[in-house]
Amino acid sequence: MHIPANDHTVRPWIPFQLKRLSDPKHPVRHFLAPIVQRIGTHVGDTVVDLFVLAGSDLMGTIGIPRVVLMETSLNRLLKEGAAPVRSLRQRLMVLLSADNAELRDNEALRQKALVPAKDAVMHVAANVGDYTDFYSSRQHAYNVGCMFRDPANALLPNWLHLPVGYHGRASSIIATEVNFHRPCGQYKPSPDAAPVFGPTRQLDFELEMGFFTYEGKPLGQRISTDEAEDRIFGLALFNDWSARDIQAWEYVPLGPFLGKNFASSISPWVVTLDALEPFRVPGPVQDPQVLPYLQYAGNKHYDIKLEVVILTSGGSETVVSRSNFRHLYWNMAQQLAHHTVNGCNVRAGDLMASGTISGDTPESYGSMLELAWKGTKPVKLDDGTERRFLEDGDTVIMRGFCEKEGLRIGFGEVRSTVLPAV
Amino acid sequence: MHIPANDHTVRPWIPFQLKRLSDPKHPVRHFLAPIVQRIGTHVGDTVVDLFVLAGSDLMGTIGIPRVVLMETSLNRLLKEGAAPVRSLRQRLMVLLSADNAELRDNEALRQKALVPAKDAVMHVAANVGDYTDFYSSRQHAYNVGCMFRDPANALLPNWLHLPVGYHGRASSIIATEVNFHRPCGQYKPSPDAAPVFGPTRQLDFELEMGFFTYEGKPLGQRISTDEAEDRIFGLALFNDWSARDIQAWEYVPLGPFLGKNFASSISPWVVTLDALEPFRVPGPVQDPQVLPYLQYAGNKHYDIKLEVVILTSGGSETVVSRSNFRHLYWNMAQQLAHHTVNGCNVRAGDLMASGTISGDTPESYGSMLELAWKGTKPVKLDDGTERRFLEDGDTVIMRGFCEKEGLRIGFGEVRSTVLPAV
Repeated sequence: MHIPANDHTVRPWIPFQLKRLSDPKHPVRHFLAPIVQRIGTHVGDTVVDLFVLAGSDLMGTIGIPRVVLMETSLNRLLKEGAAPVRSLRQRLMVLLSADNAELRDNEALRQKALVPAKDAVMHVAANVGDYTDFYSSRQHAYNVGCMFRDPANALLPNWLHLPVGYHGRASSIIATEVNFHRPCGQYKPSPDAAPVFGPTRQLDFELEMGFFTYEGKPLGQRISTDEAEDRIFGLALFNDWSARDIQAWEYVPLGPFLGKNFASSISPWVVTLDALEPFRVPGPVQDPQVLPYLQYAGNKHYDIKLEVVILTSGGSETVVSRSNFRHLYWNMAQQLAHHTVNGCNVRAGDLMASGTISGDTPESYGSMLELAWKGTKPVKLDDGTERRFLEDGDTVIMRGFCEKEGLRIGFGEVRSTVLPAV
Repeated sequence: MHIPANDHTVRPWIPFQLKRLSDPKHPVRHFLAPIVQRIGTHVGDTVVDLFVLAGSDLMGTIGIPRVVLMETSLNRLLKEGAAPVRSLRQRLMVLLSADNAELRDNEALRQKALVPAKDAVMHVAANVGDYTDFYSSRQHAYNVGCMFRDPANALLPNWLHLPVGYHGRASSIIATEVNFHRPCGQYKPSPDAAPVFGPTRQLDFELEMGFFTYEGKPLGQRISTDEAEDRIFGLALFNDWSARDIQAWEYVPLGPFLGKNFASSISPWVVTLDALEPFRVPGPVQDPQVLPYLQYAGNKHYDIKLEVVILTSGGSETVVSRSNFRHLYWNMAQQLAHHTVNGCNVRAGDLMASGTISGDTPESYGSMLELAWKGTKPVKLDDGTERRFLEDGDTVIMRGFCEKEGLRIGFGEVRSTVLPAV
């Protein structure tokens, strides 16, 4: 399996920006810079500029105020909710189909509305209000437990009873092709040594996916597992970069902090749950049985093939992991129901990530920590070098797609390069 | 010590809203409702409407675009940075002094710009992008360690080496006088029991203060302890509500989540560091010596007197804790330097809270968990009842002020009532 970056599918929706407006080659492109962004959707190798379409007479019937499509992020569109966005998606599918003449035969509008994908700069789809990271792969939790505790008691007591999660940092979520510097911090060089300060020696990726939410309910109200998927807009690829040595020293008792919040990379394309409907699959049997508020009906897992590539500064490219979103023990509906069961409010554009998605075979593990088993089994790359953790100049690329009976939906990719410590 | 809620001081700055525009008595006033908010500052029992002043000819010389003062939150003002905000504060102090005629003698403008404090509804000062909670009181960390681990090893190994912190939930930060429902969640009724679902039985407050930030630096750059205070706007009172039973079951290994994110209450008035200049005090000797990036020069702690009151539904009011912001081991400059040492970016309007502020005497402990020592020493209230944790109908009020040589600066109060579980 090798997933092409530019597979031909519709991937609604993203904010994008014409390339000439900023310099994507700048080593750290600040994603908060005051730049002109637009919302777009993707067909083949073309981005459709929804700002332009909204200003035409082709979008009059979708029940969404046109100004919503003229925003610089998806947040206001997400506030509209699932039904209007569904109408918008239907309308776009009609407009962009080959046998519809409205856009096809309007050359002037096409010239303005259709942008070659190579000329668009991708951004994070929404301004993330709150970002939550779950820990929902059983194999990942088991692997970590084996390495740091004891195989006989690898899963912590709460793990099978609730989708463990924690709050992450929204400000440092970066778009694909935005690079970052190896973070510095405190860590212990050995268990008995005093802590030192310096660049992390254990920089890692985590293969995850994340979902963006529609507007939830007001503070004090919960979202049931039945209601949850109507509050979820869609999914993107997510790389939860981690500095294992910093994390190990800081995380007891309040959880990960500086070991994570230096950067998290997300793919620009968000694939809606509607588009993923054909790819529903059953989840694992949950034993012990979960409490009623976490029980659910129907198939709420999705078959999404995933891979992680390490591209060295010398140009060697190695697939180091092949995994699948279906490997999660806790699904998105359970995550969202759990997150809100105490009345916590969720806003349009919030992001919830899955946690590292590890399958049950070593080649499907979703982090260097697991792939190289805490450094004891170095990962061999195609150029003959080995990796225990990531080196400066390494680019990590994550890709994903669904495929079934001739239907293919691609998630594109998220990529970022590790720059040397400042 | 009993701090009046309406002490006569200047407390810049807050967003406020005229009372007639919403109903503050509604049990859960949703703070995200689309309402007209304005920025204000406080003198005596009067709120000064900066929207109105910005539209007059009295604010022409401060070097801040007038539209910045016409926003509905402080975020855009905070983006301007410390120096322009300092100029604005100086200009307001001149305008509002008794011997300045510009505003005093302009009756028409006064009628529009000065609002009785009782007619204003308070809101959260800024739209918080990211909220971080530290754990910076040594006595609090020691108390918790004694209760849940062992007095001989109460402080965890990392605690004296770095200001432990974690990311909290921004969406559920609520203004004073906004009430919330007792949260439900999973907890274990006893150590050997299976987890159950229900309303928390261990609802607690945490006496904290929080600081709002100016715009920080771009991703990848750090803020030193020397630079830190120029990136801090000011301080407010903060009640980090906690459900101890939910927290205890969920928090290993990734930290607090649903035990915290149902609500966090903040006082509306933000007192700038400039205003707190006279109240600087030395901090504790830090032994072991901290790493160079956490060392600092000068006095970076502040003497701010704090108290917590429980007001029962029957009207009985008891001061249950008297503490002081100076009790923190790690100061704000160290917190911000640590937070950014890995390159994590901070944005205008981010909020960083201190963690529970417990002094070294039992009456200065900052949570019911500590005051009632895990339920073993119930707290007696003035009406003869006792509390191990909070009951439905209890109102928790936190107040704070600085006082020295006739100068008094009040923080007002933050109050919220526990409503029954939904």
